[in-house]
Amino acid sequence: MPKTAAPNTPDISPQQAQDFIAIAHQLADAARTQTLAKFRPDGGIAAANKLSAGFDPVTEADQASERAMREILAQLRPQDGIYGEELGKSWGQSGLTWVLDPIDGTRGFMAGTPTWGVLIGLAQSDGATLGAPVFGMVDQPYIGERFWGGFGQARMTGPHGGRELRARAAQQASETLSDAVVFTTFPEVGTLEERALFERVSGAAKLTRYGMDCYAYALLALGQIDLVIEAQLQPYDIQGPMAVVEAAGGIVTNWQGGPAHLGGQVIAAANPQVHRAALALMAQ
Amino acid sequence: MPKTAAPNTPDISPQQAQDFIAIAHQLADAARTQTLAKFRPDGGIAAANKLSAGFDPVTEADQASERAMREILAQLRPQDGIYGEELGKSWGQSGLTWVLDPIDGTRGFMAGTPTWGVLIGLAQSDGATLGAPVFGMVDQPYIGERFWGGFGQARMTGPHGGRELRARAAQQASETLSDAVVFTTFPEVGTLEERALFERVSGAAKLTRYGMDCYAYALLALGQIDLVIEAQLQPYDIQGPMAVVEAAGGIVTNWQGGPAHLGGQVIAAANPQVHRAALALMAQ
Repeated sequence: MPKTAAPNTPDISPQQAQDFIAIAHQLADAARTQTLAKFRPDGGIAAANKLSAGFDPVTEADQASERAMREILAQLRPQDGIYGEELGKSWGQSGLTWVLDPIDGTRGFMAGTPTWGVLIGLAQSDGATLGAPVFGMVDQPYIGERFWGGFGQARMTGPHGGRELRARAAQQASETLSDAVVFTTFPEVGTLEERALFERVSGAAKLTRYGMDCYAYALLALGQIDLVIEAQLQPYDIQGPMAVVEAAGGIVTNWQGGPAHLGGQVIAAANPQVHRAALALMAQ
Repeated sequence: MPKTAAPNTPDISPQQAQDFIAIAHQLADAARTQTLAKFRPDGGIAAANKLSAGFDPVTEADQASERAMREILAQLRPQDGIYGEELGKSWGQSGLTWVLDPIDGTRGFMAGTPTWGVLIGLAQSDGATLGAPVFGMVDQPYIGERFWGGFGQARMTGPHGGRELRARAAQQASETLSDAVVFTTFPEVGTLEERALFERVSGAAKLTRYGMDCYAYALLALGQIDLVIEAQLQPYDIQGPMAVVEAAGGIVTNWQGGPAHLGGQVIAAANPQVHRAALALMAQ
């Protein structure tokens, strides 16, 4: 698999790659069932939260979703590590770790929006730290949309069928960003300093959209937008989306152009031109 | 129809009401076909825009969607008026006018998000001005979700089936808004003064979400959120959503508590308690 193999990637045969892709679909299917069961209850989640004595429904859905995925991995890939948002970390013996965000965009989930997602990454790992993802998946259970990339695939399926993922090429004005469509979780997330840097890019762009959570990375991989800029990400927020975007030909780095697979300040770009232009603005 | 009849409503029989609901579904079906044909082209809309010489694809989709709805109305309801975003106004002889926003949330449509919508309102009219809507519909073609209200109905259908719409009741903390979930199109729309008033409510609320366009009103009617606050709306932005929210038991007014059916500064609330609390904060 020359396309995705990095120097430290464990040897993964084409057959194993197919197995990993199939397992990721199983994980996402299981997470769909658990998350949809708690999505949009009568009266909404804030109300449900007030009625039940203790646990909030988002946390319940989050944990049930991660638990369902862990049960499948325990059966099929006990030798791999698991790095989950809700239920902790374990390092396996295989050199591979599944990175799970059972509900990315919990605020959106709580409000009933259809742009939260289940994120699955498969990362290289050396038994103490996560490396870069070799495969990733972004699933939106309510719409029934799934995006995945790695091992030579970059595809989506949804309510109107499936298609290949390809980040869009540079446009005429990519060097100035004046054509660019930018997504972000600001103003909800990030320090004032981070926001000021973001606004340099946003101010130069054609259009900025807010509040789409992980769905923004899916739109970038689908060739619909140019940039996603976020801060304060955890590894499980970015491993899945990063692999999908990279498989679609996009670029994911931190705001200095370095590795982004552990989260922090992340920029995803559709092509080298918009990536370079955005980094230059943020570095000024 | 005592539930929806206002003093100036033309007499509408139960059979006519059923016909109007059926026509609205036909309109939304026709708009779905037209909008989906232009949604998420390869390389995205900004790119498509650069390639074609003149017309931008959002305008094309907008006009094709409105034209398809107008053709149906010309056949089935030539006596009614039409107040459309794209193709102008005409006042009919029936005292009723169809208010059409063929794509609400064009920025979202352009970016490929699934939260734009087709808005249909049926308003009282006296031949020169629009009155309040007696029926409304919010349709999201990509997800395949449709919300409608009026003539005694308040319902939705979507990928996981249908359900009744009911805005949620006051919660314990509704008087202080500390439990409230608020949606808005700020910071994209509105003056600085308007934004400052909005931020009084946003600052008191539990959660604020951005960028969902008309979809926010659907979530309010569905009982998932408490408030939608917007400014600078046109009549066609609010007539459809307003009827859906009111049929679900919610309240839609301007920021002073007066009529909102002509747009401007609009607040939609799930119940009188959150409505009162938000208006009080904005009036201080």
